Amino acid sequence: MASSLRSPSSLFSSSLQSADEMPGRKLKVAIAGLGRMGARHALHFYNLTPRAEVIAVTSPELKELEWANRTLEGVRTYADYDEMLREEKDLEAVVISSATIVHAEQAIKAINLGLHVLCEKPLSTSPEVSQSVLSAYQNSIKRFPNQKVICGFSRRFDASYRDAYQKVRSGVVGKPAVIRSQTCDKLDPSGFFVEYAQFSGGIFVDCSIHDIDLALWFFGEDSVVKSVSAVGITAVSPELRKYNDRDNAVGIIEFYGGKICQLYCSRMMAAGQEDCTEITGTKGKVSVNTQPTGTLVNIYEPSGIRREIPQDYYGRFREAFITEANEFTACCLDNTEVPLRLEGAVAAVKIGGALQESLITGKKIEFDERGKRIGAPAPRGGGQAPLSARL
Amino acid sequence: MASSLRSPSSLFSSSLQSADEMPGRKLKVAIAGLGRMGARHALHFYNLTPRAEVIAVTSPELKELEWANRTLEGVRTYADYDEMLREEKDLEAVVISSATIVHAEQAIKAINLGLHVLCEKPLSTSPEVSQSVLSAYQNSIKRFPNQKVICGFSRRFDASYRDAYQKVRSGVVGKPAVIRSQTCDKLDPSGFFVEYAQFSGGIFVDCSIHDIDLALWFFGEDSVVKSVSAVGITAVSPELRKYNDRDNAVGIIEFYGGKICQLYCSRMMAAGQEDCTEITGTKGKVSVNTQPTGTLVNIYEPSGIRREIPQDYYGRFREAFITEANEFTACCLDNTEVPLRLEGAVAAVKIGGALQESLITGKKIEFDERGKRIGAPAPRGGGQAPLSARL
Amino acid sequence: MASSLRSPSSLFSSSLQSADEMPGRKLKVAIAGLGRMGARHALHFYNLTPRAEVIAVTSPELKELEWANRTLEGVRTYADYDEMLREEKDLEAVVISSATIVHAEQAIKAINLGLHVLCEKPLSTSPEVSQSVLSAYQNSIKRFPNQKVICGFSRRFDASYRDAYQKVRSGVVGKPAVIRSQTCDKLDPSGFFVEYAQFSGGIFVDCSIHDIDLALWFFGEDSVVKSVSAVGITAVSPELRKYNDRDNAVGIIEFYGGKICQLYCSRMMAAGQEDCTEITGTKGKVSVNTQPTGTLVNIYEPSGIRREIPQDYYGRFREAFITEANEFTACCLDNTEVPLRLEGAVAAVKIGGALQESLITGKKIEFDERGKRIGAPAPRGGGQAPLSARL
Amino acid sequence: MASSLRSPSSLFSSSLQSADEMPGRKLKVAIAGLGRMGARHALHFYNLTPRAEVIAVTSPELKELEWANRTLEGVRTYADYDEMLREEKDLEAVVISSATIVHAEQAIKAINLGLHVLCEKPLSTSPEVSQSVLSAYQNSIKRFPNQKVICGFSRRFDASYRDAYQKVRSGVVGKPAVIRSQTCDKLDPSGFFVEYAQFSGGIFVDCSIHDIDLALWFFGEDSVVKSVSAVGITAVSPELRKYNDRDNAVGIIEFYGGKICQLYCSRMMAAGQEDCTEITGTKGKVSVNTQPTGTLVNIYEPSGIRREIPQDYYGRFREAFITEANEFTACCLDNTEVPLRLEGAVAAVKIGGALQESLITGKKIEFDERGKRIGAPAPRGGGQAPLSARL
Repeated sequence: MASSLRSPSSLFSSSLQSADEMPGRKLKVAIAGLGRMGARHALHFYNLTPRAEVIAVTSPELKELEWANRTLEGVRTYADYDEMLREEKDLEAVVISSATIVHAEQAIKAINLGLHVLCEKPLSTSPEVSQSVLSAYQNSIKRFPNQKVICGFSRRFDASYRDAYQKVRSGVVGKPAVIRSQTCDKLDPSGFFVEYAQFSGGIFVDCSIHDIDLALWFFGEDSVVKSVSAVGITAVSPELRKYNDRDNAVGIIEFYGGKICQLYCSRMMAAGQEDCTEITGTKGKVSVNTQPTGTLVNIYEPSGIRREIPQDYYGRFREAFITEANEFTACCLDNTEVPLRLEGAVAAVKIGGALQESLITGKKIEFDERGKRIGAPAPRGGGQAPLSARL
Repeated sequence: MASSLRSPSSLFSSSLQSADEMPGRKLKVAIAGLGRMGARHALHFYNLTPRAEVIAVTSPELKELEWANRTLEGVRTYADYDEMLREEKDLEAVVISSATIVHAEQAIKAINLGLHVLCEKPLSTSPEVSQSVLSAYQNSIKRFPNQKVICGFSRRFDASYRDAYQKVRSGVVGKPAVIRSQTCDKLDPSGFFVEYAQFSGGIFVDCSIHDIDLALWFFGEDSVVKSVSAVGITAVSPELRKYNDRDNAVGIIEFYGGKICQLYCSRMMAAGQEDCTEITGTKGKVSVNTQPTGTLVNIYEPSGIRREIPQDYYGRFREAFITEANEFTACCLDNTEVPLRLEGAVAAVKIGGALQESLITGKKIEFDERGKRIGAPAPRGGGQAPLSARL
Repeated sequence: MASSLRSPSSLFSSSLQSADEMPGRKLKVAIAGLGRMGARHALHFYNLTPRAEVIAVTSPELKELEWANRTLEGVRTYADYDEMLREEKDLEAVVISSATIVHAEQAIKAINLGLHVLCEKPLSTSPEVSQSVLSAYQNSIKRFPNQKVICGFSRRFDASYRDAYQKVRSGVVGKPAVIRSQTCDKLDPSGFFVEYAQFSGGIFVDCSIHDIDLALWFFGEDSVVKSVSAVGITAVSPELRKYNDRDNAVGIIEFYGGKICQLYCSRMMAAGQEDCTEITGTKGKVSVNTQPTGTLVNIYEPSGIRREIPQDYYGRFREAFITEANEFTACCLDNTEVPLRLEGAVAAVKIGGALQESLITGKKIEFDERGKRIGAPAPRGGGQAPLSARL
Repeated sequence: MASSLRSPSSLFSSSLQSADEMPGRKLKVAIAGLGRMGARHALHFYNLTPRAEVIAVTSPELKELEWANRTLEGVRTYADYDEMLREEKDLEAVVISSATIVHAEQAIKAINLGLHVLCEKPLSTSPEVSQSVLSAYQNSIKRFPNQKVICGFSRRFDASYRDAYQKVRSGVVGKPAVIRSQTCDKLDPSGFFVEYAQFSGGIFVDCSIHDIDLALWFFGEDSVVKSVSAVGITAVSPELRKYNDRDNAVGIIEFYGGKICQLYCSRMMAAGQEDCTEITGTKGKVSVNTQPTGTLVNIYEPSGIRREIPQDYYGRFREAFITEANEFTACCLDNTEVPLRLEGAVAAVKIGGALQESLITGKKIEFDERGKRIGAPAPRGGGQAPLSARL
């Protein structure tokens, strides 16, 4: 249906369409982690993913388990992730939305059992740990050739980004050459993100990782990073400096083959969530959300014409998360190709970590043509130790 | 959650939120009619309305029943509406999306059984027949005080229109005085809508009925029409004249109390579905979709900057239909107030029919302060006979 | 230069370009009336119209003449229009921006002397008086075949309207069928426009006359009006009723040949001047200013994203007035065709007056295929008596 | 008049308003250089700057002098700049729009004679030569305390940038922290800009110098650069490499005090001139032209909704150039403060040159807290030798 290709919901629709074809069996899913985003994943899979059946959830937080007991009728709850894996013999897939620090560990355990995995981003704040998840999958898939493991880069499932991607693929912009992308959060005066910065891996790993993933998507997953450089400031939250973080930062990623990505990440937006991307090629440009809007309403007042915009990433990307749930489910059930490869998730963490390092050291970081870093990294104060040290 | 109030999906979200509170029992629903919109309703209730359970569907079309058998696992199918009503003893609610000509008849039968009813618009192309549905409900509700009957004016469930309504209610525009509203379809060169015009009640009843309903919503359901006048042309489909219809028409509705509504309906848009509304009050204005967009993508090309828009009403209002399904379900289960009253659906048909008459006769039609028509209507060639003649 | 064809200033540029070709002689111009708009015309011709030389101005207001003495160095000032015409033997052109009530009289006197005339709109609030100006010109041009007389419909000189017109002419929209056009002023709480309503001819003659002129331009100057109807309210200024006027009105003009124009005029806008137009044809649509903006600035604030818009017609159309001055001058000097015909100015007053009558009487007014009114007009309380009674 | 403050032409208007006050004497101006932009300056001063009188022009090109003889009636023409300075005893001001290579030399000669100077940007492609112009002025002004010398950064005179500046100054965005600014030209397939690259100083000096000037304006003229880094590519014109230039480049300027500027310059835009700027502060953001538009027209077609944008910098900034002419004239005549200081023009060349060097070497360049470069510059193959070597 031509029309739906242009509608914001088209891709969600299309996942339902496939539901038409094979209504049969439902994918048995567990959710690990029921925090803010975990609870949303749980509801999406429980209520809005017709081909999935949530059979279990796990969280170390009693309050979250109580919420699940109240809300997710018929779903078994576990305080211990490992116990859940042991007990739920019929389990087919795990959605990991626990604290970032345990993403990799939980993912690897599920992978090793042959389960499908949808892991929230980032796999880890450490490139090495991220790599260990990929390695586990590369081993596991030999035994479980239909196993699907993806990292939840939600923008890949957003109707606007997909529309842009189709247009770029169809040649509308010629050869993509310069990408500008920003992930800018509304100012949260509660200071939540200051404490969060201890574990987030820094603003480039937490926010810009989406933009880095987009660069890899639009430039091609095989793009090889040549250099990164970044600078940043603490305009509103000087306390961030104690965690080696900043509240505003800009960066440049240079790829081999004449491709550049320009980044901006911020915690300081006034109007709301301002995530946008422009892909400029030799023949044209495609932009996503450079003129942000929430609903289709404009308000005409003595002070001018005003529109309101989404206040956070979930307000902007809710539909994408639902599409993600439906498509991941369909890929597992139908054994079809997943829309994004796990290698990219590792590459994104590597680039994000390098940008964060450049942000702190002020040094440009260079890579050879195979993507291998030239020169030694700065010793890292924060971040996540290699998983081997913890498993 | 403040943010979600501004997101396009907020109201859908809120219906899910209520799902959090009372997961328990599901509403047993049947769908009558599985044509284009009927099949969509069936899928919405089946897949995307967690608190509803579709137990039966009916359609006179064998092909549609076959589709249901393939797609809606576990749902019983009936070729005969009456048989379905007889057999399905547990049925609680019926969604009527059959041909307009049988809307009223099917609705009244379900109403008389005490079932909840969501009937597609219009109740009928005849004001008298529409009134008979309302009368049936008014009688029935004495016996079934919790019974809910609504007419599916989808825009009432659209996040943008609701956002606009909240703003108007909160006083942003002062007292609403002038509404401009248009329902303009993309040109369909297949000529589908020419044949459709035989039964549609005409462009004002088929298209502008939404705008009329919006006028009643924003001005107040108790607004009394004072006069209507309309003119129209056949710019692309002169064949429409044989069914007393036009492909472009403009109209004016005057309400008592200093309120005016300006209408435009068309079958001739080039770019897509162009439905928009402006509510101008004594202190400001709120507009909905006056700068249409589909996704958040812009394309920069040698010919300029371009954006694509939804191609049809479903591309524009899909989310609203899903919200409608969820909210109707919640109102039935929780015995809460429905968001729109059936009286309005009758009033809208009356005004739409008068506009259509004015379009054909070229005469202004006036009403007294109780909304009673002054002067005799023109004899109608087409349209729908009073239901009494057919039941 | 292709680029300038797309710039907002292109047509002004082109008038300067012609200045390149024939720098020589300057047109000797007088300005009649130095009120708000008259003073602006005087400055435009004096400072920003290189091929014109303002040699004289006239005004009955001493204060205005003093302003001219201070500001327009070397320009002679007259308290009496007739005296100016007598004394200024070298005068070639008169710009009439005096009170509407004397437009026609002053124009006819200048016409009879063979002078070029640019007369502010409307020629008169009376169709008969307007016609007398046209008749004078039709007689005069036999003696002065190069004489130019135009009525200052500023939108004809606006870069955006001209851009739209070129696109319509080039076939982008197919055959124009439906025009929606509005002239809506910012609310002026001073009540200025209430007193002004005594002489303005009413809101349709004062405001919508621009939209009517646009309809004639885009549909073709030879379009014949078939009917008009209008309704209006006094939402903010009930005092207007004593002058038979309204502060918000909508109207429909039907033309023979399947062409419709939908109008809205208002004195109640919150954000600023909201003049916009849409020309819908069989193949597409061109819109002008449906998303109003002032500068290219957007302000991102906690309340959303805001832009400011022009506050009055001069803020919106200043460049158009300057272009008008330059092009009128060039047409006079180079004896080239004027961009709009005086017949249209008479037609616009006729239609505007009929709309105003319909607004007050509530009756639809019809015209035969030669544009002759069917049925007698309502007796008019206000308005302007035929000129013959006053000359 | 409140309204004009919001109109795009407000600042031009205000310069005319001052014309009201002191119509008297006209500034005697010469134009040096009559190439593309020189001819435009000549026409702006000749036709559209009421308080200026162009008395002489000079150009080494015969064809250009012929054009002046035809077009600028009464203006004396010179093939030799020095001769013009000698002969024109009444000259008060010189507008320098000759080839960049002679900007500085011509400016210094005029400065030394006590003439007012408006010099096109850049003063020179060499920071040292630029500094020599400033030094000349600093000496000269001791003798000619009313002398005005400015560099023509046209965006400082653009209504939208001024609107943005007023808003930032009024505190709307809090403390400015991050500026993103881009100067991106439409792709010119003629390859003109390849040859031009020999003399332009490179894309950062030619294009981004405007953005650098904006950064200094919005962050404060006293902002001290801390570091610059840049990368670039040749996506469409590999020939540029022979002149050490690129067709797309991104850069970062870090200023002391927590201020960052992110740049993009390109020769590859499809739709037209895409210059935009965002100023993000601790409390909000102001954007200029992030949603580019030419006229107020939108075209609705089967492919979507389209708008056209200015095709080159003159299409975008024509009004700003005219304002510049009028304001420069007024400052000279009235001895009022100029709106931008010459120091900024030197600082901009220094930063632009460093970015260009970083673009070529791939090295980050750092400066100490007094703005002095840390480490030696790379030896420059191209660029302009110090003026001392040529005078």
